[in-house]
Amino acid sequence: MITDGTAVTREDVAAAARRIAGFVLRTPVLEVSPGLFMKLELLQHSGSFKVRGAFNRILSAGTLPDSGVIAASGGNHGLAVAYAARTLGVRAEIFVPEVTSPVKVAGLAALGAHVTQTGAIYAEAAEAAAKRAAETGALSVHAYDQPEVIAGQGTTGLEIMEQTGGVDSVLVAVGGGGFAAGITLGTGDAGGGGGPRIVAVEPELIPTLNAALRAGEPVPVGVSGVGADALGASRIGGLAFGVLSGPRVRSVLVPDEAIVAARRTLWERHRVVAEHAGAAAYAALLSGAYRPEDGERVAVVVCGSNTDPAGL
Amino acid sequence: MITDGTAVTREDVAAAARRIAGFVLRTPVLEVSPGLFMKLELLQHSGSFKVRGAFNRILSAGTLPDSGVIAASGGNHGLAVAYAARTLGVRAEIFVPEVTSPVKVAGLAALGAHVTQTGAIYAEAAEAAAKRAAETGALSVHAYDQPEVIAGQGTTGLEIMEQTGGVDSVLVAVGGGGFAAGITLGTGDAGGGGGPRIVAVEPELIPTLNAALRAGEPVPVGVSGVGADALGASRIGGLAFGVLSGPRVRSVLVPDEAIVAARRTLWERHRVVAEHAGAAAYAALLSGAYRPEDGERVAVVVCGSNTDPAGL
Ligand SMILES: Cc1ncc(COP(=O)(O)O)c(C=O)c1O
Ligand SMILES: Cc1ncc(COP(=O)(O)O)c(C=O)c1O
Repeated sequence: MITDGTAVTREDVAAAARRIAGFVLRTPVLEVSPGLFMKLELLQHSGSFKVRGAFNRILSAGTLPDSGVIAASGGNHGLAVAYAARTLGVRAEIFVPEVTSPVKVAGLAALGAHVTQTGAIYAEAAEAAAKRAAETGALSVHAYDQPEVIAGQGTTGLEIMEQTGGVDSVLVAVGGGGFAAGITLGTGDAGGGGGPRIVAVEPELIPTLNAALRAGEPVPVGVSGVGADALGASRIGGLAFGVLSGPRVRSVLVPDEAIVAARRTLWERHRVVAEHAGAAAYAALLSGAYRPEDGERVAVVVCGSNTDPAGL
Repeated sequence: MITDGTAVTREDVAAAARRIAGFVLRTPVLEVSPGLFMKLELLQHSGSFKVRGAFNRILSAGTLPDSGVIAASGGNHGLAVAYAARTLGVRAEIFVPEVTSPVKVAGLAALGAHVTQTGAIYAEAAEAAAKRAAETGALSVHAYDQPEVIAGQGTTGLEIMEQTGGVDSVLVAVGGGGFAAGITLGTGDAGGGGGPRIVAVEPELIPTLNAALRAGEPVPVGVSGVGADALGASRIGGLAFGVLSGPRVRSVLVPDEAIVAARRTLWERHRVVAEHAGAAAYAALLSGAYRPEDGERVAVVVCGSNTDPAGL
């Protein structure tokens, strides 16, 4: 078991993969043109990769308190924790901010979670959840800044390497950074150090990693725009920053219009219905914010589909 | 090259796979629960499997006339022929009936095809297309009843066997029968004869194969209901019937309500946006019209996504 505060390793990711194997889908990879792969992680249970981290955290905990599990979330992490709790037969309490879309709130209720909608953005819901956890003793499942969560998300990276036969770069969206950090570890060489370039994509309006890299440490940023209900962390997680400030990672920003356009293209050209956060990584490619070299093998992670398709 | 009238073989399917490899996607397979596989053929170029047959027919023809290619279609076949023609730089003329959905007509125009909407159902549009083909000399690409088309569709079956490591049954929707016939051949043993059971699923309101099996030969049936714009052939194709009347095939009917429910479940549970025809095979499973044995390995082909997602 990992102890909070210690670095997460590729071995932790491999252990997570074994732990959660029976509970999550091995989502498919589609090679849309030679050397361009889409990891269709939006087909995952609960509509995003977040179940990987949720299962790994809960299954690592051993016996759970009667109060079950508790989480704060822009929506997708809450859906994932609620899904995992239902699967494992434990109680789930989820705190979401006002910015969380009705689709996600409805989904949480349908999964049987106890939902509290409070605060303008994720950080405020997270505060309320922390207070409540202290009262009830429920197991807290953090949206991104816990070693087990990062290790769980990283199993996506292991699959990408296996399913593509290897790539030169992986484009992935960043909110609190748990997903990108996990993928950096999961795609890394067993020895550490080497591995594909990780292109960490953020909306210009929520540049948690970009601002942290400039400042040399996690700093708060504004939270707004189309990605706010999924990429709405106010600062990059500390554990994630430790990984994402490494040499394999390149930070890239995309404007909201590019995300909206990429979401539309995903449907029109690829028949994939993603939410905005799920389209952010592809937006970096389509908008030219990230330009692969000739012959570069690229994986784009399409990571969330909790959206109302009527908007397309 | 195959000559019209002769039987199509598994070798023809294998040859088709080599011919069209650079032009179509190897669509992904998702194992949604142990032993239940979804072949996500709706992610194919043009939104359905129909490009497989279209490319195989056109690429088998050698030099094309200046008048290019011509086809009649409920919509998806037309989109596929238009897509293939644009890719190969040839002219395409497409005839569709009034029942064809606005989404599909708009898609045809966007692909640069010359579109004529005429006749109430597919059979009438097909008559008009045949007349026009006789005038212009364009290469006719049939929606289901040509050997090259059946062989092309059958490449889906080869992929299913490779990607799943083998299954006991394959559920597939039937209109004119070209797809199911191709899949029967493509999943068959190299020696012929053996192979998984093919569960040929039709809407109760358009039972072309079911009626033909009862009559002992292709007979006309009514065409109505939610599948009419994609499964709207009035009778099973002669070549397809030759294959689908074999011992590996079981005919199953589903009511429209089951198709509507399956389409909704595909979105809500699996984050896949299918058109009604694309959900028909899954409907047979969800509704219990087809009940696998314990431990049976089942592949469900989800085969079309040319739909307005706002309807979900
Ligand atoms: C669809 C989607 N993509 C990306 C992210 C970002 O993940 P992380 O906060 O681990 O960076 C989230 C977080 O909720 C998400 O829901
Ligand atoms: C989505 C979809 N599924 C199934 C079919 C049936 O194919 P076939 O006519 O070869 O039986 C079609 C035909 O257009 C289709 O578009």
